[in-house]
Amino acid sequence: MTYCVAINLEAGLVFASDSRTNAGVDNIARFEKMRVFAKDGDRMIVTLSAGNLSVTQNAQSLLELRARNEPQNLNIWNAKSLFEVAGLVGDAMREVRSRDESYLRAQYIDASASFIVGGQIAGEVPRLFLVYSEGNFIEASNDTPFVQIGEIKYGKPILDRIIRRDSTLADAVKCTLVSFDSTIRSNISVGAPIDLLIYDIDSLQIGMKRRLEENDPYLETIRKGWEDGLRSAFEHLPVNDWT
Amino acid sequence: MTYCVAINLEAGLVFASDSRTNAGVDNIARFEKMRVFAKDGDRMIVTLSAGNLSVTQNAQSLLELRARNEPQNLNIWNAKSLFEVAGLVGDAMREVRSRDESYLRAQYIDASASFIVGGQIAGEVPRLFLVYSEGNFIEASNDTPFVQIGEIKYGKPILDRIIRRDSTLADAVKCTLVSFDSTIRSNISVGAPIDLLIYDIDSLQIGMKRRLEENDPYLETIRKGWEDGLRSAFEHLPVNDWT
Repeated sequence: MTYCVAINLEAGLVFASDSRTNAGVDNIARFEKMRVFAKDGDRMIVTLSAGNLSVTQNAQSLLELRARNEPQNLNIWNAKSLFEVAGLVGDAMREVRSRDESYLRAQYIDASASFIVGGQIAGEVPRLFLVYSEGNFIEASNDTPFVQIGEIKYGKPILDRIIRRDSTLADAVKCTLVSFDSTIRSNISVGAPIDLLIYDIDSLQIGMKRRLEENDPYLETIRKGWEDGLRSAFEHLPVNDWT
Repeated sequence: MTYCVAINLEAGLVFASDSRTNAGVDNIARFEKMRVFAKDGDRMIVTLSAGNLSVTQNAQSLLELRARNEPQNLNIWNAKSLFEVAGLVGDAMREVRSRDESYLRAQYIDASASFIVGGQIAGEVPRLFLVYSEGNFIEASNDTPFVQIGEIKYGKPILDRIIRRDSTLADAVKCTLVSFDSTIRSNISVGAPIDLLIYDIDSLQIGMKRRLEENDPYLETIRKGWEDGLRSAFEHLPVNDWT
């Protein structure tokens, strides 16, 4: 499984992804699910991926191959809008699925996959898209500034409660790590290290990119502090005398 | 959708279920998902159900019909063990599915359903079972004293963190309502009223059964207190200077 989340704030963008993949619980490995396409002053684009690893890797490799071999065509390095990039990612996934899916289905293997595509291209505001398994996509909005893929439910309530368009980047990072903590605690197929990227609006360069290992001091502070805070919040709720 | 949870504690049992059913978001109705089979001093059995409403209702009606028409056979009123009752529930569901499923499938309608079966029969300790859609079942244990059916993920983290076999009934009720609050907040197809039943160990009678409407004062206290407590816990976590 996988958990990825990205948030589009007035102050910039936050991206995070776990690094665990599994083909059954007896075959667990580490793969980075975050890829960055950045050229300072021109574009800073991040993709996060979930689902069938061969599908997501192949789709990304196709994107890179096409950009290198056919630089005159629309590609991830010359697109003028992130909307076009989301379309390219969807098209690449459709191409891979149309090649592989019948073979996977014959073995009852799920070929579904999804992407988060976000960032900023010079001349545009920062944008954030969720590309579905079928290659269609939606864009995050003022009302719902975050998108998630993979094992999304355990970590969604805290995002629902806290994240707003005007949240600070630091609060969004904190909330993202709480969201990961809830997910990792409840689903063993999601796990550290967590890849984290912070982008400051209009900077057109990577702000901060860091890999948080399981024993990362800040991650441990969040984990412990959240556990204690939840217990304290729970203890402060009144009990009823129904019993 | 549906959310149901039940907890087997040293002090007794707690059962809770929501009351919302839907056939698409444009067809939402109220149905009680909790049924009680109680004879003071002899047995106190509760079933909670999730999934296809015709399947769960028909299965329960079959259970009641068989008990009435064939009182000499094993049934929910004469079973000597809750293990047998869980088997009867599974058998009834298999019977309904074998009758209806091909017709439902032809219309792409999901016939899956599941039950929680718990309570105490004189001569046994309290027991708690989760009956899967296929009719097989598992029993809650000391390590995992709670079971959930329906929309289980949003409300699971708080149960994972708080519930232990030696939790008090009052704490378990409080935790159950927090778990419902998280679920209702994130999935509009789960909704109040919440049916709640508390059973004191070895009493062999219903302890407390109550329907909590959306504006129930205790439910509102929990909802508001939890929201405030989470926000406060979040605010007390340190931010990082990465940004």
